[in-house]
Amino acid sequence: MSNKIRLGMIGGGADSLIGVVHRIAASMMDEYALYGGAFSVDFEDTKKLAEKLDLDQNRIYPSFEEFVEGELKLPPDQRIQAVTVATPNFLHYDMSKRLIENGFHVICEKPITITATEAEELAQLVDKHEVHFCLTHTYTGYPMVREMRSLIRSGSIGKVQKVDAQYYQGWINPFIHDKEKRKQVWRLDPAKSGQSCCFGDIGVHAFNLIEYTTGLEVDKVLADLEYLYEDNPLDIDGTALLRLNNGSKGIVRASQIATAEENNIRIAVYGDKGGLKWEQENPNYLYHLAEGQPLRVIKPGYDFLSEFAQDSVKLPPGHPEGLFDAMGNIYNGMAKAIRDKSYTSGAFPNVQDGVRGMRFIEAVLESHKSEQAWVSL
Amino acid sequence: MSNKIRLGMIGGGADSLIGVVHRIAASMMDEYALYGGAFSVDFEDTKKLAEKLDLDQNRIYPSFEEFVEGELKLPPDQRIQAVTVATPNFLHYDMSKRLIENGFHVICEKPITITATEAEELAQLVDKHEVHFCLTHTYTGYPMVREMRSLIRSGSIGKVQKVDAQYYQGWINPFIHDKEKRKQVWRLDPAKSGQSCCFGDIGVHAFNLIEYTTGLEVDKVLADLEYLYEDNPLDIDGTALLRLNNGSKGIVRASQIATAEENNIRIAVYGDKGGLKWEQENPNYLYHLAEGQPLRVIKPGYDFLSEFAQDSVKLPPGHPEGLFDAMGNIYNGMAKAIRDKSYTSGAFPNVQDGVRGMRFIEAVLESHKSEQAWVSL
Amino acid sequence: MSNKIRLGMIGGGADSLIGVVHRIAASMMDEYALYGGAFSVDFEDTKKLAEKLDLDQNRIYPSFEEFVEGELKLPPDQRIQAVTVATPNFLHYDMSKRLIENGFHVICEKPITITATEAEELAQLVDKHEVHFCLTHTYTGYPMVREMRSLIRSGSIGKVQKVDAQYYQGWINPFIHDKEKRKQVWRLDPAKSGQSCCFGDIGVHAFNLIEYTTGLEVDKVLADLEYLYEDNPLDIDGTALLRLNNGSKGIVRASQIATAEENNIRIAVYGDKGGLKWEQENPNYLYHLAEGQPLRVIKPGYDFLSEFAQDSVKLPPGHPEGLFDAMGNIYNGMAKAIRDKSYTSGAFPNVQDGVRGMRFIEAVLESHKSEQAWVSL
Amino acid sequence: MSNKIRLGMIGGGADSLIGVVHRIAASMMDEYALYGGAFSVDFEDTKKLAEKLDLDQNRIYPSFEEFVEGELKLPPDQRIQAVTVATPNFLHYDMSKRLIENGFHVICEKPITITATEAEELAQLVDKHEVHFCLTHTYTGYPMVREMRSLIRSGSIGKVQKVDAQYYQGWINPFIHDKEKRKQVWRLDPAKSGQSCCFGDIGVHAFNLIEYTTGLEVDKVLADLEYLYEDNPLDIDGTALLRLNNGSKGIVRASQIATAEENNIRIAVYGDKGGLKWEQENPNYLYHLAEGQPLRVIKPGYDFLSEFAQDSVKLPPGHPEGLFDAMGNIYNGMAKAIRDKSYTSGAFPNVQDGVRGMRFIEAVLESHKSEQAWVSL
Repeated sequence: MSNKIRLGMIGGGADSLIGVVHRIAASMMDEYALYGGAFSVDFEDTKKLAEKLDLDQNRIYPSFEEFVEGELKLPPDQRIQAVTVATPNFLHYDMSKRLIENGFHVICEKPITITATEAEELAQLVDKHEVHFCLTHTYTGYPMVREMRSLIRSGSIGKVQKVDAQYYQGWINPFIHDKEKRKQVWRLDPAKSGQSCCFGDIGVHAFNLIEYTTGLEVDKVLADLEYLYEDNPLDIDGTALLRLNNGSKGIVRASQIATAEENNIRIAVYGDKGGLKWEQENPNYLYHLAEGQPLRVIKPGYDFLSEFAQDSVKLPPGHPEGLFDAMGNIYNGMAKAIRDKSYTSGAFPNVQDGVRGMRFIEAVLESHKSEQAWVSL
Repeated sequence: MSNKIRLGMIGGGADSLIGVVHRIAASMMDEYALYGGAFSVDFEDTKKLAEKLDLDQNRIYPSFEEFVEGELKLPPDQRIQAVTVATPNFLHYDMSKRLIENGFHVICEKPITITATEAEELAQLVDKHEVHFCLTHTYTGYPMVREMRSLIRSGSIGKVQKVDAQYYQGWINPFIHDKEKRKQVWRLDPAKSGQSCCFGDIGVHAFNLIEYTTGLEVDKVLADLEYLYEDNPLDIDGTALLRLNNGSKGIVRASQIATAEENNIRIAVYGDKGGLKWEQENPNYLYHLAEGQPLRVIKPGYDFLSEFAQDSVKLPPGHPEGLFDAMGNIYNGMAKAIRDKSYTSGAFPNVQDGVRGMRFIEAVLESHKSEQAWVSL
Repeated sequence: MSNKIRLGMIGGGADSLIGVVHRIAASMMDEYALYGGAFSVDFEDTKKLAEKLDLDQNRIYPSFEEFVEGELKLPPDQRIQAVTVATPNFLHYDMSKRLIENGFHVICEKPITITATEAEELAQLVDKHEVHFCLTHTYTGYPMVREMRSLIRSGSIGKVQKVDAQYYQGWINPFIHDKEKRKQVWRLDPAKSGQSCCFGDIGVHAFNLIEYTTGLEVDKVLADLEYLYEDNPLDIDGTALLRLNNGSKGIVRASQIATAEENNIRIAVYGDKGGLKWEQENPNYLYHLAEGQPLRVIKPGYDFLSEFAQDSVKLPPGHPEGLFDAMGNIYNGMAKAIRDKSYTSGAFPNVQDGVRGMRFIEAVLESHKSEQAWVSL
Repeated sequence: MSNKIRLGMIGGGADSLIGVVHRIAASMMDEYALYGGAFSVDFEDTKKLAEKLDLDQNRIYPSFEEFVEGELKLPPDQRIQAVTVATPNFLHYDMSKRLIENGFHVICEKPITITATEAEELAQLVDKHEVHFCLTHTYTGYPMVREMRSLIRSGSIGKVQKVDAQYYQGWINPFIHDKEKRKQVWRLDPAKSGQSCCFGDIGVHAFNLIEYTTGLEVDKVLADLEYLYEDNPLDIDGTALLRLNNGSKGIVRASQIATAEENNIRIAVYGDKGGLKWEQENPNYLYHLAEGQPLRVIKPGYDFLSEFAQDSVKLPPGHPEGLFDAMGNIYNGMAKAIRDKSYTSGAFPNVQDGVRGMRFIEAVLESHKSEQAWVSL
């Protein structure tokens, strides 16, 4: 009888990077055991991966439907308890819905859904069915992001008066200028990607970091998006001005044509006593600017950190942890929720974060369409 | 008979930091000799400074008017040739006008004037009287900003498709939250500071860096400004969205309440072949992001640099030069113009840069007042 | 029938950080499955961990001896194939010897043994019994260290003419100045730690990085060690001058009293065409200094990297991997060796690296005792 | 009647970088006026520079001898008071001696002399003739080096227990491997350069920084030097182990063949309470590592700095000053000494620093010749 949480996975097949990320993150803390799933539309691929992973061939399925049906036939104490949804975006909603309704906990890749309405529906179902729903906004798993959240909440920088979050990448640049090359990029295809490319994929991460670290909500946005070419249907860059619910202002800047940028997501929050800055590419450094004092560089592994940040680190100071570890922290937070039916706020991004994100994306798109009108979330 | 350009200075008296900056910059390259001026409203202070500086007491004057009159009485080959205007903002226009009309070259502190109309008038006068006018946008004097300009112009990053400039400071934070303390800050007083605090003082630097490095012009802006308190009459933070004249988009972000930030002006320009990034607080590093290649860190002192950048450096690699040296480069560029009646484009910011800046500030203010309408420059 | 390598572990029990590191590293690439072991001297602890990890209780053992005997009774296709030795230093030799002699592959924590003679004996046994032996010099698993190795070997920096490696930590400072506190530190006890503290524990890592990246061998050393107090029996700081086998010189600097340093291991190698620098605390940056050219900052995830470095990265550019991933790469290299009976040179540190390291430590100690004489390895 | 100190200069002619540095540094603080000198062996060059600089042609001289004689003929209140010696190394001693004996204050370029005996003689003469002697160890003029000195003296890092200073450059690499190219480098010619190249030119700076910041003295050294080729007579790289007079140990590492390094001088000092680190290429950052606390990054311009550091900065935080400013601080310190006949300790490096440096160089050379024996200073 296993002590680990029985995990299933939909999608994440052999060549999928996202599958690797989820498997590593799930196993890191010894909280989950992968039992099975439907990893690929091609059942032979699913079988091969199951073999490689030493999984019981009875617990893998040719399709999502058969997965749900098969697992429901098993007694509850053998049945998979939590399911990672790592399929293409347009499937997230249907699958999550079905899983929630059947009592599975869900760990869903971003974006939660294609529309805000769908996300709200999932939120209601999560409440009704008393399951946990984790949305993998990975960057919230970094210990120094968690410390930033703790510091702001404990008043270290005073009242927040300015927020600026950036997510700059360059990976679409080599494709966007050539109509043929553009077709290789599924994110530029509305059928696969949804309503938005840049803000749907990455702008929403920057938005999420703002709400996650400050505890504030964005009330309304004004957005200017960039498409570069008339026949390119989806945004690949843009800026959103924000009004936050404490009266302060902020900015989300996002780009996929910031040529040769890698994965440059960063956030700066300024309060009336000090500021905090963090950059994802050097995730183990949190910069604390305190009025009239030397800059403090906060790093993982110390007693002076908040308990929440301390619990998110496995190694002593100077031993870098990375993105898998951030995702591991999120899985770990979800595990505590599943085991205790309670959990630390912030331990993992949940269905409400998904709703907020979808509302943000839709407000941004509407603002742009209305030629930079202010749109409420 | 001196071989140096005879320099005068208005303002910049004993305790004034700006006077020190101009004097050091003027003397660095052995191109100018300070002959006299009217350094202070209190003539005793002017005398004391003149004594300290070993200046001829006949060349100092109790007032600007007397300075102009006194110098005009001297034969042209003894008369001061160029005048630094380092007085409070509201005096820049009148003094510059008077100086230009009397054939003096002018080196004017920023802002050039209080209104765009005034700046345009100065531009016409400069043309008419065939003098040179230098506006001290100091940051354009840094060698790596000049290299950035050269690289963009030579096509190193291809067609510009995204521009993002930031100028974040925190120095108003300790004053703004207390009504009494606020009164100590002359920049928050419209009578002394003009129409704008944050964009007039620093946002315009970020704007200038964009036009200076890219060679593009900003066509229109949409701005959202922050005043924090209703009884604070001037902007202390804000964001301007930009439309550039090559069709691309950009952002200027400025703040004086980014708590504990020092003088964090930085610019990122992305083209379809690569990007360039520069930060003022570490001015000797220019980051060149080239598509599919390692990041290149460009530093002063090398043969591979543009001639323009090479001419702006006095020391070999690894010997840091700073802000005085940047200002020295601008003075040096102006000296070449005065001597040759011709000069390298970009060697110093001129009256047209002043006109552009004032238009930008006014467009930003109008956009904000119109609740984030697009306003043309 | 499992497709994974059947892994056992000796030591690494419940509270042990090193056990976590090895388990995560072993599982990351889906190459190993942990089958059992003897995790603790207290069998109850071993049982508890086995339960937590869902291990078969038949495959855990109260002692190392029983582990070996028990596994040998199983048919070869069920028997554990590779064993991680994560016990205190003084046990490494005996256990490794026993394991090798019985045909197990060994993954041994550092130091390999207490003396060079013992290490040499293990090397002979590894040859004789045709097993693989991996010594976990973790830092060789970082992709940018591997790229450094590849670049040097491919001639990118020309002939090596200067090497400088540092390993500075501060963790012994809070203990060393107080005789009572000092007793809490097992590394300061020769009975547990062996002949050397600082060079045995960390100096040897710096030495290993030099030989690993350059492909050169250290011929002789001159060392000056620091003990700080007469009644402290083991070195806690020191510098070793090196003569390398291509005629060039080098330095190893190590300290555990570099107060408040975390885990600052770094290496710089200069050749007649350029230099390469790497720092462990920011492991995803490799600095390439090329004569007369801009500094190049090499990061993981690009096509221009060597195949060896590319194979050591799981994520795209800008997604940081850390220490677990470095260790995972070493486990992965070992897995390839176990499966193919052949492997890429450098894919994991082996028994010969262990011999070299022990010779280095002994030469350093002898040089210091001889008042800084040159001592050959 | 001038209020400025009347300055003369020997050497530093038209094309000389060092002349520019001294002239800018001398003028920055309005403390000195350059009156004349003998700038070049070719009197026409001296005349031309004098003309460019608007100097009185009566105060320039064809030779050093004529300079001294000419000035001595003038009444003391017109006579040049302080003389900058910026001639080739081998002339420093004779010229300084003559100047001191005739009552001139001396500002001498490094190295002070060719031998320690000569330096000691100068020290005695300085005492006897009651003049001030400034040796331009430029790096001691950086505000953050001065803050480092102040912090260590005030006990911020406790008792010093480990010191490590590095000075790595790469500029000799392009010359050293080719016998013909080597001849272009005067520093490799003992007739012009003296006994040592690398340690005489740059190693001594690292040594000086150690004694300057810590207030400790180096008692003895053990050095291993690198010449690379048998027919190269002077050291171009090396390491010196140090024993300091408080019982602690240290290292000076220097190289001119650290290929493509620019001017990488840095120092780390560790005490029993914390550490301090500084790097010349980013001179406005001082890193304070405090036991169990976040790293503090100390920058210029703040009230919390020592008075000594505050007095060495002209601009507010975030406005970088550089090498000229560091040299300006040294000139400024010397000016205070000249005016007051007293001065703050550390305000400029003096003749005793010169003696210490020469003893260090000679001890290093002797140690190397004796095959790494310990040699006392």
